[in-house]
Amino acid sequence: MKAHVYVTLKRTVLDAQGKTIAEALGRMAYKGVEDVRQGKYFVLTLAPSLTEEEAQAEVDRIAREVLTNPVIEEYSIRLEP
Amino acid sequence: MKAHVYVTLKRTVLDAQGKTIAEALGRMAYKGVEDVRQGKYFVLTLAPSLTEEEAQAEVDRIAREVLTNPVIEEYSIRLEP
Repeated sequence: MKAHVYVTLKRTVLDAQGKTIAEALGRMAYKGVEDVRQGKYFVLTLAPSLTEEEAQAEVDRIAREVLTNPVIEEYSIRLEP
Repeated sequence: MKAHVYVTLKRTVLDAQGKTIAEALGRMAYKGVEDVRQGKYFVLTLAPSLTEEEAQAEVDRIAREVLTNPVIEEYSIRLEP
């Protein structure tokens, strides 16, 4: 089983890197992009012995305690059977 | 409309950062994770005037030409109406 974890800055936190990309795209030949937010993306390969519930709980714990800085970031998870 | 772009190292490229995370998780109290790959994640907010086809084409061009290093990385896109 694989788990996809998406970590982004909270909406209220200024994303300087994303802003820079958005401005650069505007100066180049790319139109139609109003805003960019950059985040991190993790693909976890899980042991096949885990049930879906165990996997969900374990990945949630890892995302919350290790992969995310809860002060400025938030995360979402997608399990892929 | 929003577009989500996921950029990861190609499977054939060693992901040192992901390996480090996987080993660290193993040494800590987190079991059941066999492998970790780290990538980048972008959320693009698009101008509402774009049709879905235009958005798909523009985001594909941006992902290919700007957000991804085609030598070592690959990307996937998800459009959100």
